[in-house]
Amino acid sequence: MKNEKILVVGLGMIGASYACKLKLEGLYVGGISARQSTIDYALEHGIIHAGSIEVTKEFVEQFDIIISALYPKLFIEWVKKYQDYFKSGAILTDTTGVKGSVLYEIQSFLRSDVEMIGAHPMAGRELSGIESMDIHIFDGANYLITPTEKNTQHAVGVAREIGEILGFKRISVLSPQEHDEMIAFLSQLTHCIAVSLMCCKDSKHLVEYTGDSFRDLTRIANINENMWSELFLMNRTQLLEQMTVFEKEFARLHKALEESDAETMKEMMRLSTERRKLFNK
Amino acid sequence: MKNEKILVVGLGMIGASYACKLKLEGLYVGGISARQSTIDYALEHGIIHAGSIEVTKEFVEQFDIIISALYPKLFIEWVKKYQDYFKSGAILTDTTGVKGSVLYEIQSFLRSDVEMIGAHPMAGRELSGIESMDIHIFDGANYLITPTEKNTQHAVGVAREIGEILGFKRISVLSPQEHDEMIAFLSQLTHCIAVSLMCCKDSKHLVEYTGDSFRDLTRIANINENMWSELFLMNRTQLLEQMTVFEKEFARLHKALEESDAETMKEMMRLSTERRKLFNK
Repeated sequence: MKNEKILVVGLGMIGASYACKLKLEGLYVGGISARQSTIDYALEHGIIHAGSIEVTKEFVEQFDIIISALYPKLFIEWVKKYQDYFKSGAILTDTTGVKGSVLYEIQSFLRSDVEMIGAHPMAGRELSGIESMDIHIFDGANYLITPTEKNTQHAVGVAREIGEILGFKRISVLSPQEHDEMIAFLSQLTHCIAVSLMCCKDSKHLVEYTGDSFRDLTRIANINENMWSELFLMNRTQLLEQMTVFEKEFARLHKALEESDAETMKEMMRLSTERRKLFNK
Repeated sequence: MKNEKILVVGLGMIGASYACKLKLEGLYVGGISARQSTIDYALEHGIIHAGSIEVTKEFVEQFDIIISALYPKLFIEWVKKYQDYFKSGAILTDTTGVKGSVLYEIQSFLRSDVEMIGAHPMAGRELSGIESMDIHIFDGANYLITPTEKNTQHAVGVAREIGEILGFKRISVLSPQEHDEMIAFLSQLTHCIAVSLMCCKDSKHLVEYTGDSFRDLTRIANINENMWSELFLMNRTQLLEQMTVFEKEFARLHKALEESDAETMKEMMRLSTERRKLFNK
């Protein structure tokens, strides 16, 4: 892949971290951003070789691989608008946290001589913008590749190589459906819980009393509302299902406490302790 | 306080950490445990000056301050059984995570020449037993003193001095009711959430995909079921109320997603982000 040119579309925290790491690893990297100040910053800091705020055929068609680090809806619109500029044979991939609703739509209208392969870097911070760039966020993290029936082994291989160059610890291949169910439970549901917990009450007088549990549970309540509401809506069915599963378990514990049923409470605690042990790092 | 002798009852993780730190600070420290092996360990490791598995008048009456690190119910029984052995004028304090139901009961039957002052060290680990002892768990942590109408300023002062010697970062005084409401929300509710989340599904196949959010949210799902079910039941009314508050907020987010109501979702996310900022360490 060393000779292929990579275009990163969207130079926010994730896009800029991708671009910088790929460039450090010796690849030629271009960048597109909506803002000239972002392109300037990226060029000044050596994050990209070339950048543009205008999307022109001349600029885009030089790239063999296009990586989107845009929000999912914007990504779909961007491909619709500019796919005519893509080089024939280009591989298109992404970084979005929902897969089914993005991939099937893009594959439904994408030019047949270009291939879209979904990927999800499970790394992030409660930060945004190019200044938050950090090439170390991939260390120890998971990278998921989500091919559909339309994808070739070649494209899966390209996505895997990108994940390897970025330095992810574990690269897995799973279907968009498996991905979306898993992410609804592990990531989106946990964000729903953290947000709901912070909404419960004005808690500023509690800061001085808090222990680590509340702090840990609400770390992710510091949330980018535009991105996350979009992710939730684009994985709506799966997330609603996981929310219901959680509500049922929580209601079971609530009922046990209401009935002073210590045995059910202990049973749930034993199960949770046993299962949680597997997740220790 | 340097000349007063302190007895720590119960040499689990918290009791042993108390004893060791107080002894290191130059105080004379005795220990009581149900197991000889624990006393032997405590003596061998210099955690206490003297120890006993038998509760005798001769042993107990030499101490000016008695600190219980027993589970709440056992603590109440222990005082009932052995209060005749206490030195006249002794101060009794504790480490339990619920206050109202413990303090009022003990104060209702306690000898009038002995004073019970409640305290709650907000420090802990997902570990138990004397081998988990760690005198650094108090660094940076909160220590809460919860006097009732029956307490004297002298006893509050003694509890404060203990907190200072142990090295707590912040010492606060609040009523048992305020304490129990706060702890139901900040600590017990968060444990209920973590336990329920782990009970949702057999998640072992998810370990390789998980990001930090799920790990953070479920750290405390590794839980001592005997202690926590007792704590929940002893603060039942308060915890039930907080569970209901959380269920309502979670249901609000659930409904917003169901109705694809992005505005309500974003509003909740903005509120949670704003509130969470205060909790950054």
